Amino acid sequence: MTTNSLGKLFLIPIPIVEGNLDTIPVAVKEKSISLKYYFVENVRTARRYLKQIDKSINIDLITFSEVNQRNPADTPLLQEWLKQGFEVGIMSESGCPGVADPGSVLVATAQEMGALVEPMVGPSSILLALMGSGFSGQNFRFGGYLPIKNPDRTKAIKQMEDWSLQRNETQIFIETPYRNHQLIQDLIQNCSGKTKLCIAANITADNALIKTMTLTEWKAQINHIDIQKTPCIFLIYRTI
Amino acid sequence: MTTNSLGKLFLIPIPIVEGNLDTIPVAVKEKSISLKYYFVENVRTARRYLKQIDKSINIDLITFSEVNQRNPADTPLLQEWLKQGFEVGIMSESGCPGVADPGSVLVATAQEMGALVEPMVGPSSILLALMGSGFSGQNFRFGGYLPIKNPDRTKAIKQMEDWSLQRNETQIFIETPYRNHQLIQDLIQNCSGKTKLCIAANITADNALIKTMTLTEWKAQINHIDIQKTPCIFLIYRTI
Repeated sequence: MTTNSLGKLFLIPIPIVEGNLDTIPVAVKEKSISLKYYFVENVRTARRYLKQIDKSINIDLITFSEVNQRNPADTPLLQEWLKQGFEVGIMSESGCPGVADPGSVLVATAQEMGALVEPMVGPSSILLALMGSGFSGQNFRFGGYLPIKNPDRTKAIKQMEDWSLQRNETQIFIETPYRNHQLIQDLIQNCSGKTKLCIAANITADNALIKTMTLTEWKAQINHIDIQKTPCIFLIYRTI
Repeated sequence: MTTNSLGKLFLIPIPIVEGNLDTIPVAVKEKSISLKYYFVENVRTARRYLKQIDKSINIDLITFSEVNQRNPADTPLLQEWLKQGFEVGIMSESGCPGVADPGSVLVATAQEMGALVEPMVGPSSILLALMGSGFSGQNFRFGGYLPIKNPDRTKAIKQMEDWSLQRNETQIFIETPYRNHQLIQDLIQNCSGKTKLCIAANITADNALIKTMTLTEWKAQINHIDIQKTPCIFLIYRTI
């Protein structure tokens, strides 16, 4: 079977902040509401989003298959849809699918079949945080969540600081929001005061704030920081 | 001086493929044509792009300062503009500013002053390639250009394969386009045949192609690959 007879997989970004349609290009919105076959992280979120784009959309004509921690990706269904020549979409719960969500296994399946895959443009909190940090974008690394317990947590923090210094590599990571304040304390305790920390909070929201300071400066303001339970991207960069 | 009295720095993405305005959200285009003070990688590209968005724009009302390999960032000028309370834009030659271009030094200056920085949504070939590869987006690393000469080049390739295997970390890198074919040969020669390579060529263009195969499969098709002088993002991921 050649690529041409197979369907195509579209990676459909959605806003990071619900309802913020300004962050999605018009062409991406139009593709989103044209697809009839979808893998989505959350069916309710997906339906609501499609209706936000087009109130007149007939949601019942769209088939959704859920992919998340409870529901592993139904790869045989994707294969079936692509073999039938359908255009299929993947939508995550927020932002761009295939980055830090379960969508990549579906993309891998499409790639193994030789089907075309088209990632579409939309908001990525990781990328936006990197742009706004002022840190080097020539080399960077995203490591996902930090370990929760010591000594692994402390080791991971020191490791990132070392990599940043040795390789001139910006280190990007995330934390469960209710541990944000603890994380800042842990960074202050384990890294040089000269190491810079960027906190990118509520990316793309009206109250978004991307702030870069040295850990010494963060420490001086520690009582004024209020990002507990706020979705954040953290970035560190060590200057000599 | 408090943040509120300072101006604001906007990071303005432009299309990767010239004229492909479909990849830019409307709100970002509107912000782009409203700014009167710009740092740009290339003044001609910037003027042409702004005119594509709005034919009636009066380009002579906009002040441009060039930042590139010949012209280091005029940080005192940025400080002056921000102190005067101006909204200032940064635009690179293609895609998102601040990632793999000279813009990040200006963002760092704005951050040091305590000015607000707002990264706007647009196309990033690195991010789109990662989404389309089917590789893990839970952990990834962008390392920029590979070294040109051996033994550094071979060492860097083997290092990436090791990191991918040990850390489950997708390795993303770029090459000067006229060396693309040599690069594929070098990867085949130095990595396991089971290691997967994704080549993301001409991202966001009509003839974009994002293809993931094992190096054994790429080797079998080596005479049919034609990406010499084509802008590409390369990604490798080692499966056991």
